[in-house]
Amino acid sequence: MAATAAALSGLKVLGKQLVIAQRIWPSVLCRAASTSFKASDLQIELNKQPKEKTDVANLIFGKAFSDHMLTVEWSNDKGWGKPQIKPFQNLSLHPATSALHYSVELFEGMKAYRGEDNHIRLFRPMLNMERMHRTALRACLPSFDKAELLECLRKLIEIDQDWVPRSTSASLYIRPTFIGTEPSLGVTKSTHALLYIILSPVGPYFAGGGFCPVSLLADPQYVRAWIGGVGNCKLGGNYGPTIFVQNEAIKVGCQQVLWLYGDDHKVTEAGTMNFFMYWINEHQEVELLTPPLDGLILPGVTRQSLLDLARKWGDFKVSERSVTMSEVIKGLQENRVKEVFGAGTACVVCPIKSILYQGTNYALPTMENGPDVAKRFLNELTDIQYGRTPSDWSYLV
Amino acid sequence: MAATAAALSGLKVLGKQLVIAQRIWPSVLCRAASTSFKASDLQIELNKQPKEKTDVANLIFGKAFSDHMLTVEWSNDKGWGKPQIKPFQNLSLHPATSALHYSVELFEGMKAYRGEDNHIRLFRPMLNMERMHRTALRACLPSFDKAELLECLRKLIEIDQDWVPRSTSASLYIRPTFIGTEPSLGVTKSTHALLYIILSPVGPYFAGGGFCPVSLLADPQYVRAWIGGVGNCKLGGNYGPTIFVQNEAIKVGCQQVLWLYGDDHKVTEAGTMNFFMYWINEHQEVELLTPPLDGLILPGVTRQSLLDLARKWGDFKVSERSVTMSEVIKGLQENRVKEVFGAGTACVVCPIKSILYQGTNYALPTMENGPDVAKRFLNELTDIQYGRTPSDWSYLV
Repeated sequence: MAATAAALSGLKVLGKQLVIAQRIWPSVLCRAASTSFKASDLQIELNKQPKEKTDVANLIFGKAFSDHMLTVEWSNDKGWGKPQIKPFQNLSLHPATSALHYSVELFEGMKAYRGEDNHIRLFRPMLNMERMHRTALRACLPSFDKAELLECLRKLIEIDQDWVPRSTSASLYIRPTFIGTEPSLGVTKSTHALLYIILSPVGPYFAGGGFCPVSLLADPQYVRAWIGGVGNCKLGGNYGPTIFVQNEAIKVGCQQVLWLYGDDHKVTEAGTMNFFMYWINEHQEVELLTPPLDGLILPGVTRQSLLDLARKWGDFKVSERSVTMSEVIKGLQENRVKEVFGAGTACVVCPIKSILYQGTNYALPTMENGPDVAKRFLNELTDIQYGRTPSDWSYLV
Repeated sequence: MAATAAALSGLKVLGKQLVIAQRIWPSVLCRAASTSFKASDLQIELNKQPKEKTDVANLIFGKAFSDHMLTVEWSNDKGWGKPQIKPFQNLSLHPATSALHYSVELFEGMKAYRGEDNHIRLFRPMLNMERMHRTALRACLPSFDKAELLECLRKLIEIDQDWVPRSTSASLYIRPTFIGTEPSLGVTKSTHALLYIILSPVGPYFAGGGFCPVSLLADPQYVRAWIGGVGNCKLGGNYGPTIFVQNEAIKVGCQQVLWLYGDDHKVTEAGTMNFFMYWINEHQEVELLTPPLDGLILPGVTRQSLLDLARKWGDFKVSERSVTMSEVIKGLQENRVKEVFGAGTACVVCPIKSILYQGTNYALPTMENGPDVAKRFLNELTDIQYGRTPSDWSYLV
């Protein structure tokens, strides 16, 4: 059923290419068709020594991995090779590999959820495929057919289906990765690349089931991304430099970083999450606000889903616009801020309880206000993810 | 002789630590001493199948590698392992390796030169060790003793000495690399790391011996680095995103990118080189100008050496200060610009012949003016590098 859907979706993509190709140059179609790997070419080598599965309760994020992985090699000379599902194993990389020197690398984060009906579902996976494809072009890595990659991923999960936790608070984290494997030191377009996917079972984000709000450090001396940079792409280079700043936050008793931008200290992202504020704005309107996709912000799938849900509800104003720290502080002083939270694949929503900014620790009333809106988002999204609510955002594996 | 110098330099570093440690806390010394690998622990496995050496004339930058490599592993539990020199070989890396996902990675670029006296020299290598150490701390990778790393490198080159080209226009490029090898997906300080060095013989930067000036695209929509970011560190993430922009430059007929910053379009770097302009400034002073180390600029060893030489000469004003595109254009229009060039390890100096900026291609008179100053720098530096001029910037291998 899911395979058919994927095949259909593959056909749709081909159909679209056909139209475009006929308009421009008929032979483009043949070239386009041959410039992606195909799920139908999958070569499968099963793991003969499957691992013991860790108890869901003891899972630490991203430390345990399933029995198999997907790999697809590309070279400028030969194009895409056949996708392979094989036992999870180390990669053998040339020491000059461009991913290791120049960070020619990108990734995605998504999850597979097992519902009470025992079906396994992905959540809006095509959004991840599209973001991955867009980031690949920015990294000068080769194009691929998004529907074909999704079908390869579906097959990988099908093979490792026992690794999707039997719990509606746990899930199987999926890490598509795409690296340049150019074996030389010129800072130039990679002539070799490797796309791979690994799977990691993960437990509940909040131990104990309830929300556990986080404290943030907002220090304007550290800037995550900038206009003219690549903050809107899921490139590895956006993450490494944040570890130092995250440690600075911990040193002053905060848990994560609130990233600011510009002389007016605009709020951009929280840790590796998108930032949301539910408040009564300057015009006395009830508003859900998140920073706009102006190049600084990663276009998160959860971010988009919260915006889509809130717009469907129609219960309050929904805005993608910038907000500065002074506006947040003024809102707090005038009791207009109701809930502040991060949004991402790992937590869905994560309430924020305080912001340490220029020597003052500002308490946020997120938990005192329920947080009603954050909870509503969490419930609606997890109902879709675990199949309690039918939705066209669900993708059956 | 060189080994003794290195040992002495090691002692000097230890001596300095001793003084600091005594002032603060005596036991720090023991900890500091045990938190680096040591060159005296080197384990050496020689390559039994040495490769054919490529003719110097046919070398493409960074594509050929010598017979051996240096590796040193680190883990949070065990600290630094023993440094190893072993046959050049692929790395076996866990697919979750933090260098491949979050760009926990950094490198250095330096060269070994064989003089007419057949001695092999490094050029101010301690500056590279210091920058590497500083970048490692920013990447939350472990500290090490810079003098010990330099001595390990010296030993590696000694073993691969036949790979240092017998030519005073070629050299052996040295690529120290330091990567996080954390085998899990949390965006956090790596608990495993690998420091390694590979060596690559390289031919003359300019084919034919003479200067070959480059054309630059200055497009303010692409920004390399930002105040509050990591542009002053040699982190992999600073390089990958430039490949796309470099390709955009080529599309419009330019060879490299001139990186601008800010609303006033300050000039920052040229390609992967530091930017220099020799001109008559607004106050009618003859001035050599390069952008200041304000966080945006990589503190290049060649950059520092040009500044040091020019200050020693005392023949013109030497300034580290910002310059905007409008100032450059005004200078051009008033015939005040004499020479514009990039500076870096690969080329020493590289003349710039034009800048394409906002639709206008500005011709620079660099080659028409000799370029006298660029040539003087090239000659003085290569005389030191190839041992024709004795200098305390030379380090004998």
